[in-house]
Amino acid sequence: MGRLPVASPTTPVSSLRRLRLTVAYDGAPFRGVSEQAGQPTVMGALREALETVVRQPVDLVVAGRTDAGVHGWGQVVSGDVPPSVDPATLVRRLNRLCGPAIAVRSADWVPDGFSARFDALWRHYRYDVLNQAAPDPLLAPTAWHVVEPLDLASMRLGCDPMIGEHDFASFCRRPKVSPGFAEASLVRRVLSATWRHVDHDRTDGLLRFEIRGTAFCHQMVRSIVGTLVDVGRGRRAAGEVSAILAARSRAAASSPAPPHGLCLWEVGYPDALVTP
Amino acid sequence: MGRLPVASPTTPVSSLRRLRLTVAYDGAPFRGVSEQAGQPTVMGALREALETVVRQPVDLVVAGRTDAGVHGWGQVVSGDVPPSVDPATLVRRLNRLCGPAIAVRSADWVPDGFSARFDALWRHYRYDVLNQAAPDPLLAPTAWHVVEPLDLASMRLGCDPMIGEHDFASFCRRPKVSPGFAEASLVRRVLSATWRHVDHDRTDGLLRFEIRGTAFCHQMVRSIVGTLVDVGRGRRAAGEVSAILAARSRAAASSPAPPHGLCLWEVGYPDALVTP
Repeated sequence: MGRLPVASPTTPVSSLRRLRLTVAYDGAPFRGVSEQAGQPTVMGALREALETVVRQPVDLVVAGRTDAGVHGWGQVVSGDVPPSVDPATLVRRLNRLCGPAIAVRSADWVPDGFSARFDALWRHYRYDVLNQAAPDPLLAPTAWHVVEPLDLASMRLGCDPMIGEHDFASFCRRPKVSPGFAEASLVRRVLSATWRHVDHDRTDGLLRFEIRGTAFCHQMVRSIVGTLVDVGRGRRAAGEVSAILAARSRAAASSPAPPHGLCLWEVGYPDALVTP
Repeated sequence: MGRLPVASPTTPVSSLRRLRLTVAYDGAPFRGVSEQAGQPTVMGALREALETVVRQPVDLVVAGRTDAGVHGWGQVVSGDVPPSVDPATLVRRLNRLCGPAIAVRSADWVPDGFSARFDALWRHYRYDVLNQAAPDPLLAPTAWHVVEPLDLASMRLGCDPMIGEHDFASFCRRPKVSPGFAEASLVRRVLSATWRHVDHDRTDGLLRFEIRGTAFCHQMVRSIVGTLVDVGRGRRAAGEVSAILAARSRAAASSPAPPHGLCLWEVGYPDALVTP
């Protein structure tokens, strides 16, 4: 009484700066990229390491929400950290903390509004198939082993109908719709899709599917690969692929290829957002 | 009494035929190639699978006794199986039984006296080093990550003194000598040893050491790599390697490189023994 309360010192609004990380990972030990309580995930491990280094909570946004077992080479993540952080030092410290299954390849300052997810112009995925009789223990973690000889020419023909903007409902796990909400669109634009033979010093049987699109629905790349490998096996004709796409029904396509052959290779952004 | 005992049918001496297997493996899940009771080993897993298929005990002889964590691509194994076995069918059945970490690449009949170990003319090993700042999660299982920039020219100079017949005591774990027995010779002949840069679609930093010799002592390739990488780092001069070799003392060399970068690539035999 009679005395004014001592003013509590004003906590300055922490001014943060937006950072973009390029991240590689072996998908095998994780339940996917997106955080899930109590499960090992790429984002969970990365966020924990980042929070240890910057000593404050960090929210991360990821470009491609890859499934359990899917690998990443050019995954992109954005989040806000104190401006005192030195990106090169941060990379070294994160790599010491994250362990062998996750590697931060680079860290760069980006404009404050940058979102790894919403500013992405395209995503580029790779899928490796080892097509020979004998398995290869050192390729087993990253390539789907298919024993029946595949016809690459048919698989290439089967790529053509994918190019362009289509409703990919036949190749996607349909998302759950909450009551009162409209169904999410499964229309996506594929920019390129190719199969090629890859030189390798242990085998002549390594085939690689590369697909670039503005965005992908859940399990879309793996479902396309599963269908095109069935074309390569001769179980389906390349000419059927247009009809499978037009059916807009998951039952029309083949089962998804297994996750371990898939890798998120690169994510593209407007030059103005990522050029230092 | 009065009746002669019924003659028991003569069991025919089982005539067996010698088989040569070429075997690849991921060394990570195994305690090495040679069988050890109660431990997961490549030979243990392979022998069990083979005995399941041929339904009788099999003794196996292995060309290169690689350590825990070392990989194999061209490991060679010999053993005797019933002549009714079809090698191509055997390969398929073994690959179904052995699981993803072991693959039988081929099976061929060889002359009865063939020994995978004693008939080998040379062994060829590879050692991969990933020389860049950031780790690569998908190369982590098969390459030693060395962050300090390595000078390839010096590492190549350091190879030259290895060529030829030498006592490699400086680069070997000296075997235990049983009382009353002479010390085993550590003299070996190295036919070639090179370092080169390997093209890779994810990195410019993959370096490969290739060494071919008539035979190798325990930990010899890894000790040579450990020493040459120290030369590449500038911790030792390339000119010191001759003196290290001449010292015939393990203390003179660097620590062995870790096992996961090493792979037994190929084993050579006289043409007459392996050409079908």
